[in-house]
Amino acid sequence: MRVDLNADMGEGFGPWSMGADADLLKVITSANIACGFHAGDPDVMAQSMTLAVENGVGIGAHPGLPDLQGFGRRRMDISLDAAHNLVAYQLGAAQAMAQVAGGHVRHLKLHGALANMAAADEELARACYTGALAVDHDIIIMVISGTAQERAARGLGARIACEIFADRAYAEDGQLMDRRLPGAVLHDPDSIAARILEMLRAGAIITAQGAHLPARIDTICLHGDTAGAVALARTLHTGLQAAGISIQPFDGIRADRQ
Amino acid sequence: MRVDLNADMGEGFGPWSMGADADLLKVITSANIACGFHAGDPDVMAQSMTLAVENGVGIGAHPGLPDLQGFGRRRMDISLDAAHNLVAYQLGAAQAMAQVAGGHVRHLKLHGALANMAAADEELARACYTGALAVDHDIIIMVISGTAQERAARGLGARIACEIFADRAYAEDGQLMDRRLPGAVLHDPDSIAARILEMLRAGAIITAQGAHLPARIDTICLHGDTAGAVALARTLHTGLQAAGISIQPFDGIRADRQ
Amino acid sequence: MRVDLNADMGEGFGPWSMGADADLLKVITSANIACGFHAGDPDVMAQSMTLAVENGVGIGAHPGLPDLQGFGRRRMDISLDAAHNLVAYQLGAAQAMAQVAGGHVRHLKLHGALANMAAADEELARACYTGALAVDHDIIIMVISGTAQERAARGLGARIACEIFADRAYAEDGQLMDRRLPGAVLHDPDSIAARILEMLRAGAIITAQGAHLPARIDTICLHGDTAGAVALARTLHTGLQAAGISIQPFDGIRADRQ
Amino acid sequence: MRVDLNADMGEGFGPWSMGADADLLKVITSANIACGFHAGDPDVMAQSMTLAVENGVGIGAHPGLPDLQGFGRRRMDISLDAAHNLVAYQLGAAQAMAQVAGGHVRHLKLHGALANMAAADEELARACYTGALAVDHDIIIMVISGTAQERAARGLGARIACEIFADRAYAEDGQLMDRRLPGAVLHDPDSIAARILEMLRAGAIITAQGAHLPARIDTICLHGDTAGAVALARTLHTGLQAAGISIQPFDGIRADRQ
Repeated sequence: MRVDLNADMGEGFGPWSMGADADLLKVITSANIACGFHAGDPDVMAQSMTLAVENGVGIGAHPGLPDLQGFGRRRMDISLDAAHNLVAYQLGAAQAMAQVAGGHVRHLKLHGALANMAAADEELARACYTGALAVDHDIIIMVISGTAQERAARGLGARIACEIFADRAYAEDGQLMDRRLPGAVLHDPDSIAARILEMLRAGAIITAQGAHLPARIDTICLHGDTAGAVALARTLHTGLQAAGISIQPFDGIRADRQ
Repeated sequence: MRVDLNADMGEGFGPWSMGADADLLKVITSANIACGFHAGDPDVMAQSMTLAVENGVGIGAHPGLPDLQGFGRRRMDISLDAAHNLVAYQLGAAQAMAQVAGGHVRHLKLHGALANMAAADEELARACYTGALAVDHDIIIMVISGTAQERAARGLGARIACEIFADRAYAEDGQLMDRRLPGAVLHDPDSIAARILEMLRAGAIITAQGAHLPARIDTICLHGDTAGAVALARTLHTGLQAAGISIQPFDGIRADRQ
Repeated sequence: MRVDLNADMGEGFGPWSMGADADLLKVITSANIACGFHAGDPDVMAQSMTLAVENGVGIGAHPGLPDLQGFGRRRMDISLDAAHNLVAYQLGAAQAMAQVAGGHVRHLKLHGALANMAAADEELARACYTGALAVDHDIIIMVISGTAQERAARGLGARIACEIFADRAYAEDGQLMDRRLPGAVLHDPDSIAARILEMLRAGAIITAQGAHLPARIDTICLHGDTAGAVALARTLHTGLQAAGISIQPFDGIRADRQ
Repeated sequence: MRVDLNADMGEGFGPWSMGADADLLKVITSANIACGFHAGDPDVMAQSMTLAVENGVGIGAHPGLPDLQGFGRRRMDISLDAAHNLVAYQLGAAQAMAQVAGGHVRHLKLHGALANMAAADEELARACYTGALAVDHDIIIMVISGTAQERAARGLGARIACEIFADRAYAEDGQLMDRRLPGAVLHDPDSIAARILEMLRAGAIITAQGAHLPARIDTICLHGDTAGAVALARTLHTGLQAAGISIQPFDGIRADRQ
């Protein structure tokens, strides 16, 4: 049994830094690197790509909405064509910066509000992923397990990696619980590790009330910008390994070949 | 005898358009397409790339300084690393958008103030071109003939295409005459065509006072954003063909294999 | 009987221009000038303000969402605080540029998607207008007649100017008909003028089916960026004057003093 | 005897923060607040202005070049008109945000590369300050003592406040020593305080070799973004007070009334 650990990276911009990239890169196996629209700039990307290559971590493009001030977290009503093009553009830029650093982009994961919108809107997800696949037919699409993202990527016959969230509780319909509800965000590293282990063994998302929703689980999302992110990542890494789970990059098996 | 005709393209942004791209694409053989930093955005690029592919015109990335308001025409004191990275980033984005349109990026030409600075500063030119070559070792670097751009690209062993300007007079040192001097900008299409023909036959830049400075001439730069640009382009195209010059894309022979 | 004619202005950015500002300024009495977030930059604003002063036209700040590429026409999910602050910021910038040009900002009108959102969301409208009034307690808020914009501005006791649209049909609920429906956008200058005259005399919005919805009408919005905008503006101006309507800037009488 | 202490503030942007504003505001008497072009956005400005008001600190607009990625530290070749307009625009925005917070802008200080260019180019400094004075004739221009900034502001008859730098050594011509030279940047709080006290008593800039260059000294610039900035500020504040120097906001006496 195996699983990948992923986290967002390279979220600085110009003079501003964010996150504990250097520490997290020692724990994770896949890095989602911002591409300049919601965070990141060519210099920040060059550094982030180099760090990822040095740590042997799988590189992902992490395209977002064109909203630096809002960090790509504010929903924008963009057209399907615009979504397609902005994902393609950012993926191309990420490929170039990865190549400059001696690496290459293995996967793509949508960021922030774009990810949230695509998790609920299969047509939008398809527009984004079509843009990515037009640039690289073999890229692995990292999707939020059980959402419109997964359906869109499967429908396109793409290589996929399905993710669940380490520190977020799931509602009974398999969606993330609203952050504002009590218990929606989990904090205790040990119980988080136990819960993830349970999900991996069950091959299912386990909801707040304990229901098992069968799900493909290839990777676990760690948040890099919260307090205690590095400690949580380490605990999870250690806990899973101790339980016999191998922590390694996903393969991105094509959806139709499962 | 042969020559390429190139022009800048895709210089709109969002709701704003610029230039007579559709008309010029019927005359030129190479298009330099803005990459989103001084002009162009993912949607504009998608359209421009598609138009270029439909017209069978060679696609070039045309990276500029990060200055939309100034259209990349204001000098900025960027570091060598920043120059390297911004060229790599923009080239990657252009490659992706070309691929989406069913084409690919053959060449790269620096835009505006970045081009002017690199024409005088070999170290800066080398930083820019190293960024481009790290992304695509076979890309053809379009350089202003006889400048530090050419020396830098030759020094890197790159495939190159040397350009002269259709509508600008040359000073006795082979540099473009300052725009503010009388006679620096040429307007009459027929005399422009005759002058270019003379340079092609001489294999030399011919200065305002008539001196011949031997130069490699692979392509002629047409300006797309000036009044009469299309008329000039047509006159030049017709005049050169009538004189037995073949108008076709450059080969980009490596500097060291000339 | 009197009415004001208003149009959007100063919608260029950097090297790009838009609209027939110089011509429209000879016909309108109020100009809504972009403030740098969806269009306009300090140089474009300086020019637009100067033109408005020279033509004796009332100056308005026309703040929009921070989205140059989308021209402020894409809805963004901004917080109430962010709305408040971005309106205040843009109004302050507009005041400065007006002062540099020897004029001053009399009114404020929201642009694009921000205007559309505020027309349906009184809380958002209130946040925007509170931002404006904190900067200038006497500024006249131009609102779309009969919408949440008007309710919010009245609730704040602001000076207001209520606008109707020259070239758009109204649905039976008093809202603009969806652009995509047949007949939603009107094109014939003479029938547009006749219809506006009828509304002014009736003191009511007249719907597509002929219902009269009583409404305060202080100003008529002309679109500057559509083909025939100048011709329509002239026909309307001439037609209204011929019918004895005085074309002059609105007074902005406070809502509670009507 | 009295002096003002100033520091740059509000240099975050969107999700990114910078500097120890809350701590420094307890020590300084004047805050230079970024205006959105090199740092700051409407929300960050609203917060910074509120903090400044709460601490009773004099508010300054701190306009910079339009270069977020470069933090306004990269020289750009802008025209005099562009300089004039970008200072006016940013000052207007700052005035609005100050007013929203219940304060007002007392002074203006140029940021980064714009400040450096204006310190050496009186014509550029004049363009910037003319833009500021057109917006507020009574604004106090904070200038680097003994530079073209001071000459330009004096020439315009403006109210001025002349600053020296706490932690930088002065060359024999009164200019700041190049940062790359040994001894150019001072680190020891106690010796910094002693040196500043000596300059205040002498009414002169004291160079690295001990020469006294008579200078008007109204305010001392503290850097907020360096390690130890808060400790240095406190030591300086305490040291000057112990020596009988009153720490209070400058008056901004007009240059021609000295």
